[in-house]
Amino acid sequence: MKTIKIGILGLGTVGTGVVRMLEGEKDLIASRLGAELEVAKVADLDIDTDRGLTLPKDRFTTDANAVIDDPDIDIIVELIGGETFAKSCFERAIEKGKHIVTANKALIASHGNELFRMAAEKEVDIAFEASVAGCIPIIKTIRETLAGNTISSLAGIMNGTCNYILTRITQEGVGFEEVLKQAQEIGFAEADPTLDIEGIDTAHKLAILNSLAYGMKINLDDIYVEGITKVTLEDIRFAEEFGYRIKLLAIGKRTNGAVEARVHPTMIPMDNLFASVNHSVNAVNVHGHATEDVFLVGQGAGMMPTASAVVSDLVDISRNLINQAGQRVPYLSFQSDRISDLSVLPMEEVTTRYYVRFTAKDKPGVLSQISGILGQYNISIRSVHQKDGGDEGCVPLVMLTSMAREKDMQSAISDIEALEIILGKATLIRIEE
Amino acid sequence: MKTIKIGILGLGTVGTGVVRMLEGEKDLIASRLGAELEVAKVADLDIDTDRGLTLPKDRFTTDANAVIDDPDIDIIVELIGGETFAKSCFERAIEKGKHIVTANKALIASHGNELFRMAAEKEVDIAFEASVAGCIPIIKTIRETLAGNTISSLAGIMNGTCNYILTRITQEGVGFEEVLKQAQEIGFAEADPTLDIEGIDTAHKLAILNSLAYGMKINLDDIYVEGITKVTLEDIRFAEEFGYRIKLLAIGKRTNGAVEARVHPTMIPMDNLFASVNHSVNAVNVHGHATEDVFLVGQGAGMMPTASAVVSDLVDISRNLINQAGQRVPYLSFQSDRISDLSVLPMEEVTTRYYVRFTAKDKPGVLSQISGILGQYNISIRSVHQKDGGDEGCVPLVMLTSMAREKDMQSAISDIEALEIILGKATLIRIEE
Repeated sequence: MKTIKIGILGLGTVGTGVVRMLEGEKDLIASRLGAELEVAKVADLDIDTDRGLTLPKDRFTTDANAVIDDPDIDIIVELIGGETFAKSCFERAIEKGKHIVTANKALIASHGNELFRMAAEKEVDIAFEASVAGCIPIIKTIRETLAGNTISSLAGIMNGTCNYILTRITQEGVGFEEVLKQAQEIGFAEADPTLDIEGIDTAHKLAILNSLAYGMKINLDDIYVEGITKVTLEDIRFAEEFGYRIKLLAIGKRTNGAVEARVHPTMIPMDNLFASVNHSVNAVNVHGHATEDVFLVGQGAGMMPTASAVVSDLVDISRNLINQAGQRVPYLSFQSDRISDLSVLPMEEVTTRYYVRFTAKDKPGVLSQISGILGQYNISIRSVHQKDGGDEGCVPLVMLTSMAREKDMQSAISDIEALEIILGKATLIRIEE
Repeated sequence: MKTIKIGILGLGTVGTGVVRMLEGEKDLIASRLGAELEVAKVADLDIDTDRGLTLPKDRFTTDANAVIDDPDIDIIVELIGGETFAKSCFERAIEKGKHIVTANKALIASHGNELFRMAAEKEVDIAFEASVAGCIPIIKTIRETLAGNTISSLAGIMNGTCNYILTRITQEGVGFEEVLKQAQEIGFAEADPTLDIEGIDTAHKLAILNSLAYGMKINLDDIYVEGITKVTLEDIRFAEEFGYRIKLLAIGKRTNGAVEARVHPTMIPMDNLFASVNHSVNAVNVHGHATEDVFLVGQGAGMMPTASAVVSDLVDISRNLINQAGQRVPYLSFQSDRISDLSVLPMEEVTTRYYVRFTAKDKPGVLSQISGILGQYNISIRSVHQKDGGDEGCVPLVMLTSMAREKDMQSAISDIEALEIILGKATLIRIEE
């Protein structure tokens, strides 16, 4: 039986999981692949910590180049993370003609266009299923299953930390800070949770999926990103009254010759499946013109789910190696000469529905003034709840609008905030149906 | 650009959808595949009906062999359905070295083992994603995405007709016969709905998935099958009171060195995602040891969703043709010499929880007699509701049991039905958590 040699860079959580899977399921994988995957070399700066791996000691090295340059190694697995050192490893591996599997969403989202161009020249495969939504086969689904479909929209809950925090606030009524602290204690959130809770990690994933779905270049910089730090229990409860849940959603939509690309807290109807995706679970929906909605749910992070995605990519590339069928599926779903100049729709041009919460003085005529201003911007109110119980003669006033343009909505909000009867800033949450 | 020539057998709903997609999305498909798919010939007994297709008239024939035997054709799409003629077309195509794409679950479930053996000898690809759950990429997910996973269970709502009927009964409180009649009128159910409502179609799909997941031969005959014709509104309402929905579920589980394979109405907790999969939508869950649950939802039938699955298989095989990489993924997920003799666990050995409804005389001591008998078979009652409102001094008595062996449950039910205080037959619905 043929043996395919794997070199692994980075022995963090996912790297350890990959070695564990390749060692532990060697026979199972061979029974499906018809070849053996061998962990030939593993590089990490720390090779002394006992990770419970059965691999012989001489396979470990602290020198990444010793792995990349090894002429016996067929595929490099890059699990270093970050952009700088990982990128130089990537470039060196491509230069050496090594195929690469990665879970590094930041690297692909920021430098994918350049790296894929280099890889194409060297006829090198790059696989990155693990970079988006863990073990959910969303990249394979877009690149392969939907080959005959014009995709009109995609959306996803793609950050487990955010979904875990929002779920616990919703279900237990605890505050954001408290849940975040607990999430950090049990390892569900990083010590520095910025990338997750500010929506940046989700934006990385959306940049990748938009490119695959719409045949556009990876375009991270133009994505509108708003995290979950300002989502309050109060807004979650008001949303419930209107029949909605609040989730951090990534949205990619074909509209008016461009692509919407936005990440923000989003109100979703209770009977939509996204509303039932809780805790650290991820979900992605893709709408094809023929398939209609294809909705995929699974673990979006964690040692073994992510390792599983890495191993499925390793098996895919190995099947190509066995059959000498490199670059069988284009990196970004479309042939490189068919990737278009499609651009991201500026956020101010996006049209959607809104939930708005104001704090208003409890006086007659408040609603008439607010609806007057909204009316000037052609925004109509679908429903409104004026609540009791604010402090010192103030009441929360919550409303859902009809479809409105973001630019108009922002202008209207500014005008309303300037009213004498309105206190502080308004809270705005976008709605998807 | 390379052109790959496709021959299509059968111009029913799906066949028409496939031609429509290949013609309508020719450029889109080429932009992803890097080759053109051309519908070279189409065979159907009726080629006079106007199906709104743009294909030139001379591509149509009434002679299936004229398609199969055409030396220019690379891939045959079998959409004839049924087992007899379709099988002979399959065999002829394999003999001629043609790759085949099919949506024919009955053929694969009944004759797959034999057909794949023949195909392997001739080095012919056979793809059948469209045969299970329409556009949901469940076959690709099991065969490719889960390559490193030991699969411990799978379950699916895989018949749109049944799910549509159960949803409407549940949501609108109408009776089975009435919903079925309406479903037939709008084309959601066949004139002869037996294959669907008796669970046979679902069993075909389970036979295929079990083989892929567990590396066993396709084993249709040993699947336990119970349809939805006996599900009553009364049981649906009682299930709701206990916090459950009733769905026709296919279940395939590794247990005790064998595989459970059963299709039957199943009570599912309300907060399980399956409970929210309604109308004609399908869903499949697969549990891998590394991924945990991977849950996929989408249209399980219909012209374009099924056509989409056929086209994705055509693109897959075309990528193999372009790269001369035939049989890149084994037909049944495992290399043919690694398919085991794993067998189906006899239904009487299956262990699960049960909902049981008896009609009992409204007398003291009824519950004590019933629980006494259940106790003799080591079955304990988890909860029990005795209802008012039966006819002539009779009451419905519903209960949920703890885990019990099917054989014990059936024996206990027989004994209980023989009691003088019990009228008629008991209703038994199995529960999955």
